[in-house]
Amino acid sequence: MANLIKKRSRKSGLPPGSLVHIGERKVRTPKISIIDYDEAKFWEERSKKIEECFVFKERPTITWVNIDGLHQTSLLEALGDCYGFHPLVLEDILNTDQRPKIEDYGDYLYIVLRSLEYNERKKEIESDQISIILGRNFVFSFQEKEGDTFDAVRERIRTGKGRIRKMGADYLVHALLDSIVDNYFFILEKLGERIEFLEEQLVTQPTTETLRTIHGLKRELIFLRKAVWPLREVVGSLERGESPLIQESTRIYLRDLYDHTIQVIDNVETFRDMIAGILDIYLSSVSNRLNTVMKVLTVIATIFMPLTFLAGIYGMNFKFMPELEWRWGYPLLWGVMVATGISMMIYFKKKKWL
Amino acid sequence: MANLIKKRSRKSGLPPGSLVHIGERKVRTPKISIIDYDEAKFWEERSKKIEECFVFKERPTITWVNIDGLHQTSLLEALGDCYGFHPLVLEDILNTDQRPKIEDYGDYLYIVLRSLEYNERKKEIESDQISIILGRNFVFSFQEKEGDTFDAVRERIRTGKGRIRKMGADYLVHALLDSIVDNYFFILEKLGERIEFLEEQLVTQPTTETLRTIHGLKRELIFLRKAVWPLREVVGSLERGESPLIQESTRIYLRDLYDHTIQVIDNVETFRDMIAGILDIYLSSVSNRLNTVMKVLTVIATIFMPLTFLAGIYGMNFKFMPELEWRWGYPLLWGVMVATGISMMIYFKKKKWL
Amino acid sequence: MANLIKKRSRKSGLPPGSLVHIGERKVRTPKISIIDYDEAKFWEERSKKIEECFVFKERPTITWVNIDGLHQTSLLEALGDCYGFHPLVLEDILNTDQRPKIEDYGDYLYIVLRSLEYNERKKEIESDQISIILGRNFVFSFQEKEGDTFDAVRERIRTGKGRIRKMGADYLVHALLDSIVDNYFFILEKLGERIEFLEEQLVTQPTTETLRTIHGLKRELIFLRKAVWPLREVVGSLERGESPLIQESTRIYLRDLYDHTIQVIDNVETFRDMIAGILDIYLSSVSNRLNTVMKVLTVIATIFMPLTFLAGIYGMNFKFMPELEWRWGYPLLWGVMVATGISMMIYFKKKKWL
Amino acid sequence: MANLIKKRSRKSGLPPGSLVHIGERKVRTPKISIIDYDEAKFWEERSKKIEECFVFKERPTITWVNIDGLHQTSLLEALGDCYGFHPLVLEDILNTDQRPKIEDYGDYLYIVLRSLEYNERKKEIESDQISIILGRNFVFSFQEKEGDTFDAVRERIRTGKGRIRKMGADYLVHALLDSIVDNYFFILEKLGERIEFLEEQLVTQPTTETLRTIHGLKRELIFLRKAVWPLREVVGSLERGESPLIQESTRIYLRDLYDHTIQVIDNVETFRDMIAGILDIYLSSVSNRLNTVMKVLTVIATIFMPLTFLAGIYGMNFKFMPELEWRWGYPLLWGVMVATGISMMIYFKKKKWL
Amino acid sequence: MANLIKKRSRKSGLPPGSLVHIGERKVRTPKISIIDYDEAKFWEERSKKIEECFVFKERPTITWVNIDGLHQTSLLEALGDCYGFHPLVLEDILNTDQRPKIEDYGDYLYIVLRSLEYNERKKEIESDQISIILGRNFVFSFQEKEGDTFDAVRERIRTGKGRIRKMGADYLVHALLDSIVDNYFFILEKLGERIEFLEEQLVTQPTTETLRTIHGLKRELIFLRKAVWPLREVVGSLERGESPLIQESTRIYLRDLYDHTIQVIDNVETFRDMIAGILDIYLSSVSNRLNTVMKVLTVIATIFMPLTFLAGIYGMNFKFMPELEWRWGYPLLWGVMVATGISMMIYFKKKKWL
Repeated sequence: MANLIKKRSRKSGLPPGSLVHIGERKVRTPKISIIDYDEAKFWEERSKKIEECFVFKERPTITWVNIDGLHQTSLLEALGDCYGFHPLVLEDILNTDQRPKIEDYGDYLYIVLRSLEYNERKKEIESDQISIILGRNFVFSFQEKEGDTFDAVRERIRTGKGRIRKMGADYLVHALLDSIVDNYFFILEKLGERIEFLEEQLVTQPTTETLRTIHGLKRELIFLRKAVWPLREVVGSLERGESPLIQESTRIYLRDLYDHTIQVIDNVETFRDMIAGILDIYLSSVSNRLNTVMKVLTVIATIFMPLTFLAGIYGMNFKFMPELEWRWGYPLLWGVMVATGISMMIYFKKKKWL
Repeated sequence: MANLIKKRSRKSGLPPGSLVHIGERKVRTPKISIIDYDEAKFWEERSKKIEECFVFKERPTITWVNIDGLHQTSLLEALGDCYGFHPLVLEDILNTDQRPKIEDYGDYLYIVLRSLEYNERKKEIESDQISIILGRNFVFSFQEKEGDTFDAVRERIRTGKGRIRKMGADYLVHALLDSIVDNYFFILEKLGERIEFLEEQLVTQPTTETLRTIHGLKRELIFLRKAVWPLREVVGSLERGESPLIQESTRIYLRDLYDHTIQVIDNVETFRDMIAGILDIYLSSVSNRLNTVMKVLTVIATIFMPLTFLAGIYGMNFKFMPELEWRWGYPLLWGVMVATGISMMIYFKKKKWL
Repeated sequence: MANLIKKRSRKSGLPPGSLVHIGERKVRTPKISIIDYDEAKFWEERSKKIEECFVFKERPTITWVNIDGLHQTSLLEALGDCYGFHPLVLEDILNTDQRPKIEDYGDYLYIVLRSLEYNERKKEIESDQISIILGRNFVFSFQEKEGDTFDAVRERIRTGKGRIRKMGADYLVHALLDSIVDNYFFILEKLGERIEFLEEQLVTQPTTETLRTIHGLKRELIFLRKAVWPLREVVGSLERGESPLIQESTRIYLRDLYDHTIQVIDNVETFRDMIAGILDIYLSSVSNRLNTVMKVLTVIATIFMPLTFLAGIYGMNFKFMPELEWRWGYPLLWGVMVATGISMMIYFKKKKWL
Repeated sequence: MANLIKKRSRKSGLPPGSLVHIGERKVRTPKISIIDYDEAKFWEERSKKIEECFVFKERPTITWVNIDGLHQTSLLEALGDCYGFHPLVLEDILNTDQRPKIEDYGDYLYIVLRSLEYNERKKEIESDQISIILGRNFVFSFQEKEGDTFDAVRERIRTGKGRIRKMGADYLVHALLDSIVDNYFFILEKLGERIEFLEEQLVTQPTTETLRTIHGLKRELIFLRKAVWPLREVVGSLERGESPLIQESTRIYLRDLYDHTIQVIDNVETFRDMIAGILDIYLSSVSNRLNTVMKVLTVIATIFMPLTFLAGIYGMNFKFMPELEWRWGYPLLWGVMVATGISMMIYFKKKKWL
Repeated sequence: MANLIKKRSRKSGLPPGSLVHIGERKVRTPKISIIDYDEAKFWEERSKKIEECFVFKERPTITWVNIDGLHQTSLLEALGDCYGFHPLVLEDILNTDQRPKIEDYGDYLYIVLRSLEYNERKKEIESDQISIILGRNFVFSFQEKEGDTFDAVRERIRTGKGRIRKMGADYLVHALLDSIVDNYFFILEKLGERIEFLEEQLVTQPTTETLRTIHGLKRELIFLRKAVWPLREVVGSLERGESPLIQESTRIYLRDLYDHTIQVIDNVETFRDMIAGILDIYLSSVSNRLNTVMKVLTVIATIFMPLTFLAGIYGMNFKFMPELEWRWGYPLLWGVMVATGISMMIYFKKKKWL
C-alpha cells in the first residue's frame, strides 16, 4: 500500500466521463481472456483485440471477458461503444482508487471492489481495483494487473465441476466475488500469524523494533478496513436482489458470501482491538522498565552517596581531627559503613525495590 | 482460544457447498445420540450410524439427533441427502469458525452459535461451534466435541419434567439455546472473580504480572464479545417469530432467552469498562511509583552532594588554607554540615517529598 | 455494589420457570403490606400471609400489595396460582440481577427496575431489584429488603393528597416509579458533591488517595449507568402507551417521568466525562511533579558535580602541583567555584528550571 | 456553572405537579413586563401583579408576558389557574435544572431552554433556564433573573421594524429563541478566543497554569454541550411543524434557526476536538521537557563522574604510588581528563543529546 | 484557517433577513461574470452592474451569473428584488461561516458549500464559502473572492465540449459542485504527501518539530472534516432528486459526485486514523528515548559510584590504615576496581542495557 492517495490531478477540470487512467501502470500490454459457455458448450481464447468478444453479444450463451491492464483507454472506449456502457462506468474502471460500490444501470450492474495480495518481498499488502460488469448474458471483469485470483473459477468452468455451468451470469459474478473474499481470509491468516508472533515477542523481549511492527500492522489494518467495510454494503445490496439480473436461486449463495464478508470485517475489528491492546501493553512495559532502571540507580546512589561522604570527611586535612588518631578509627569506620550499607539494603528489600 | 483465526486455505478455490472440515479434529470418532419423544412415548439410543435416525423422518414424534465430532464428512452428506439440507448448510456446519447466525431455509432453520468452556488447565476460555437445525418435527445439533452442555436437557426429556415433552421441536431448540446461554453466565462468574481478584491485587501489590493478567483478560473479553454480540441478533430474530416453525407459545420463552442474552452482553461490556479502568489505574500507579523513587533519589542527592563537596574542599592540599589550622575548624564544619542536612530535610518535608 | 455478578450456578440446568431465589438473602422473613383504596375508601394492613390479598382480586377497588423479602418461594407460588402470573415472571422476580425491563403479558405488565441507595457506612452505592406487576385493578411490588422508598406514596394514598386516589392503578405505578427515580437524583447529588470535592483536592493536593477515589467513582458510575440506561427504554415504552392498562390521562405524567430519566442519564454521562477529565488532569499533574523533581535533581547535580571535581583535583597528592604552592591558590579556587555556581544558577534561571 | 447538580431533595416525596422552586434565588422580587400588540397597536407595561395580563386573554392581539424571577410560586399558580396550564408545566418552570425540551399540550406549547452568559468576573459561563409558553395569541417567557437577552426583540416590536408586528405569536417565539441562540455565538467567540490564546501559549511557554486552563475549558464545553445538544431536537421538532400553533410562513425562519443550532453544535464539537488535541500536545511537550532535563543530567554526570573518580585515585594516600612522583604526572592527568571530557562531548553531540 | 470562529456580534439583535456581511473582506470590488447559453448560442460578459443579467430572466436560455466578493450588500438586494429570493437566502450568502447545506425554496434551490485552497505561503488550508442558487433556467454562484475553481467549467461551456451545453441548469450546478470536490482531492493529495513525509521523519529523526507538525495536521483535518461531512448530505439530497429542478438525466452524474464525496470523507477519516497512530508512535518513541538516556546515566553511575567510594576510602587520613603501607596496595586496588567495573559491564550487557 505504497501511496496514501492516488494522483487525480491529471483529471481535474475534465468533464465527467473523460477516460483517463489514474493509478500506476502495472502491466505492459493489456491481456484479454474470453470464455463463452453454457451447460453444453465451452469455448476459451486469449486475445489482444477486444473486438473478438463482440460476436457473443447477441448469443444466449454466457460470455466472460477478463481484461488485465487498464491503461489502454481505446480498448475500453471500443467496449463501451459496442455494449452501450455509460461513460461514467468506463471512467470509474480507469480511476483505480475507487472505494467498493455497486451501481445499477438497469441493463447491467457495475461492481467495484478491491483484491488484496500479500507481497512477500515488500512485506506489505498490495491492493488492486477489480471492476465487474454484469449483464444479462455477459460478465466483464477488469483488473489492474495479471493475477491468479480467478484461476480456480476458470478451472471450474472448464471442467464443469459444481453448478457453475448450469447457472446464469449472476452466479458467475458470485463465483468471482467469492474467490476475492476467499483471498481476504488468506490475508487475515497472514496478519493473524504476525499478530500472534508480536504477542509472543511482547512477553519475551520487547524492543524498539516491536513498536515499528505495531505501527506497520496498524497502518495495514486501516487500509484493510477501508477496502472491506464498503464491501459489506455491496454484497448486501446484491443479496437483497433489487436488480432483476440477480436470480432467486443465486441469492442463497450471495447470503453465504455476505456472511463471509461479515466474518472478514469481524476479524479486522478484532485485530484492531488486539493491536490497540498490544500497544497499551508495550507502552506500559516501557514504563515498567524505566521504573526498574530508576530503582537500580536510586539504590546505588542511596547506598554509595552517604558512604562516599563519610570517606570524604576523613580525607579532610584539618589539623585537629581526633578520630584520625584513634587506633581503631579505620576499622570502626568500615564497620559503620558496612552497617549503613546493609541496613539500606534491608530497607530497599522491604520496599520491594530489589 | 488458541488460534486467532482458523486456516481456511484448504478450501480456497473450491466451489461453494464443498464439504471440507475446517478446524481442529477434537474427537476420534463422531458420536450420535438419537432421542425420539412425544408427550406419551420416549425412546433413546446411542449409535454410530446416522442412518438409524432416518426412520423417524416421517413420524409425527419429535426427533432430536445430536452429533459430537464433525470431521467425518460422509456422515453429513448422508444426512443432507435424506433430509434435503442445502449444501451451504452442511458446509457451514463443517467450517467451525462461523460467527453466530440464523438462516431461514423455509422448511428448516439453521442456527450457529458458540459454546464456551473454561479450561481450568490452560486457564483460558475455549470456544466450540454448535450448529442446530430445526425442522417441523426434528432437531439436529452438531458439536465439535463431546460435552455435557446438553445433559440437563436430555434429563428433562427423559423424566418428562417441565413442559418439554408437551411442546414442539421449537421449544426443544429453546432449551438447547438456553443451556448454552446459561453456560455463559458460568463463564462470566469466573471472569468476574478474576477481575475482582485483580482489583484487590491492584490496591495491595501491583506487579508486572498484573499487567500480563490485564492483557489476558482483555484478550478473552474481545473473543467473548465476538461470540456473544451476534447471538443477540440470532435470538432476537427467533423471538420475532418470522418463521412458521416457531409457535406462538414458545415465543415468550424466547423473549426470556433474549433478556438473558442482553444481560450477558451487558456484563461483557461492564467487564470491558472495568478492565479499561483497571489498566488506567495500573498505569498511573506505575507513574506514581516512579515519582516516589525519583523523590528518594533527589532527596539523597540533594543532601549528600553539597556535603560531599564541603568535605572535598577541606581535603584539598593547598599550602595556605587557614581553616585547616583552626582549633575548632573540624567540629565547626560538622556543625555546618548537620545544619545544612537538617534544613534540607525540613525543606523536603514542607514540599511533601518525604 | 459488592459483587460484580451474582451466582446463578444454582439454577443452571433447571427448566425455565423454576422458582429459585438468586441473590443475597437480605431480610429474615418477608413482610407483606396490603393497601386497598378508591376515591372514597381506604384500607391498609400489614400481614405475613399472602392469601389475605386474594379477596380483593375481584373487587373494583385498587389493591397495592408490597412484599419485602423474596427468598420464600412458596409465597410467590401461591400468588402466581391465584392471579395466574406466568412462571417466567415469578422466576424473574426471584433472579435479583435482572436489568431493567418491561414485559407485556396482555392482562398485566411486568416491570423490573433497580432502586439505588447510598450506604453511608460502606461508602458505596447499593442496588436492589424492584419488580412491579400492574394489572387492571391491582399493583404488586416486590423488594429485596425493607426500604422507605415507597413511604411517601403510601402517605399520599392515606391522606388522599394529590390525584392519586382519584386515578387508576397505572397512576399508582407511575408514583412508585417516580419515587424510585427521585431517589436517583439524591444519589446523583451525593456523587456530584464527591466529584466537586475531588476537583478541589486535585488543585490543592493530589495524592495517591486521589487516584483510588477516581477509580472508585468510575466503578460506581459504570454500575449506575447499567441501572439507568435501560430504564429509559422501560419508561419510554410505558409512555408510548402500547398497553391498554395505561390510560390516556396518565401518559402525561409518564412523559414527565421520562424526562426525569433522561435527565438522570444526562447527569451520569456528564459525570463520566468529568471523571475522565479529572483522571487526565491527575495523570498530567503527576508527570508535572516528576518534571519538577527531576529539575531539582539536575540543578543540584549540575552545580555540585563540577565543584566536587575541582575540589577532588586539589586533593590529589602529586608531588609537583604548582597551584598548591600559590599564596592565593585557595581563595582563587573559591572564587572560581562561586563564579561557576552563580553562572549555572543564572543559566537555569533563564531556562525557567528554578 | 457553579454547582454540578441542583438540590432536588426538597421536592422528593411530593406528588407530581407540586410547585416548589428548585435552584438559586437570583432576584429579590419577580418583575413582570407585558407587551400587547398587533400590526396597528402597541401597548407596554411593567408591573408587579400578574393579574394585569389576564384582560388580554380573550383579545385577538398578541400578548407577550415576560417574568424575571421564579421563586414566588403564588404568581405562577394564579397564572396557571387563569390560562389553564397543566401543573406539570408550572412545576417544570420552577425546576431550573431542566434539559431543553418541547412539550405539546394541544392548546399551547411548552418550551424549555437554557440561556448562557459569560460572567467576566468569575471567568465562567453561567447558565439560566428560560421557559416559554406559546398559545394561539399569547407568549409567556420565564427567566430566573433579569437579563438583556430579549431587549432587541422588545425594541423590534416597539419600532415595528421587520416582520414581527405583522406575524403571529409563533414568530415572536422564533424571535425569542433566535436571540438566545445568537447569544450562544457570542459565547462561542469568547471560547474560541481563549482556545486560540491557549494554542499560542502552548507553543511559546507551557506551564502548569496551561493544564488548569485546559481542564477549565474542557469542563465548560461539557456543560455547553449539555445545553446545546437537546436544543437541536427542540428546534427541529418546532420546524417540522407538528403543532397547528406554528404557521407555515414561520417554518422557514425556524429552519434558519435550526441551521444556527447545528452550527453551534458543530462548533462545540470542533472545540472539543481541539481541546483534546491541545491536551495531547501539552502532555507530549511535558514528556519532551523531561527528556531534555534528563539529557542534561546524564551528560553532566557522564562527564564528571569518571573525572572525579580519577581525581579521587590520585588523592589516595598509598605509600607506593609511582605516578605521584612523576615530574609530569599532574599535567598529564589534566591532559587525560580534558581528552576524556572532550571525547564525551563529541559522543553526545553525535547522539544529538546536546 | 486563521480564525476558529467568525465574528457575528455585528449581527446580534437584528431581525432575521437583515443583510450584513459577516467575514473578512477579501476583494476590493465585486466582480460579476455573466454567461448565457443554450445548445446553439453562447454569450459572455464581465460587468460591474448586476442589473445587466436581469434581461435574461424570462428568456429560455440558461444564464449563469458568478459574483466574486460579497461585501457590497446593495448588489445582493437588487438581485433578490428582481428574482424574488427570500431574505434568509441573501442573509446566508453574506454570513460566510455557514456549514454546507441545501435548501429547497420551491422555485429555486439554495446550496452552500466550502471551497478549499492550499495557501503555499502560509502553509495552511484556506476555506471560502461558495453559495449557489439553482433556478429553472438560471444559476447564481457567489464566492468570497476571485478564484480559478470554475475556470474549467467556463471553458467547457465556451468550447461546448462534453454535454454541458446540451443539458439544463441542473447539470451546470453539477459541474460547479464537481469542480469544487475535484479540488478537495488536490488538497487531500497535499495532505497525504505531508503525512507520508511525517511518517518517514518519525522513523529517521523525530524532533519536537515533529510534534508541532502532527498538531498542525490534526487541526487541519478537524476543519477539513467540518467542511466535508455535511457535503455528503447535500449531494445525497440532490441525488435523491426530491426537487423537480433536478432532471432524471442529471441524477446519474450526481450519484457519481456523491461517490466522490464519500471517497473524500473516507480519505479524511483514514488520515485522522493515521495521524492518531503517528502521535502514538511519536509518544512511545519519546518514552523509549527517555529509557535509553536513563540507562546510560544508570550504567555510568553504577560503575563509577562504587569506584569513587573506594578511591575516597584510601584518600582518608587515618593514622592506622595498614593497606596504605602495603607494597602492592595501589596496584591491588586498581585490580579490584577494574574487576568491579568489568563485572558491572557484563551484568548490564546481560540485562541488555548496553
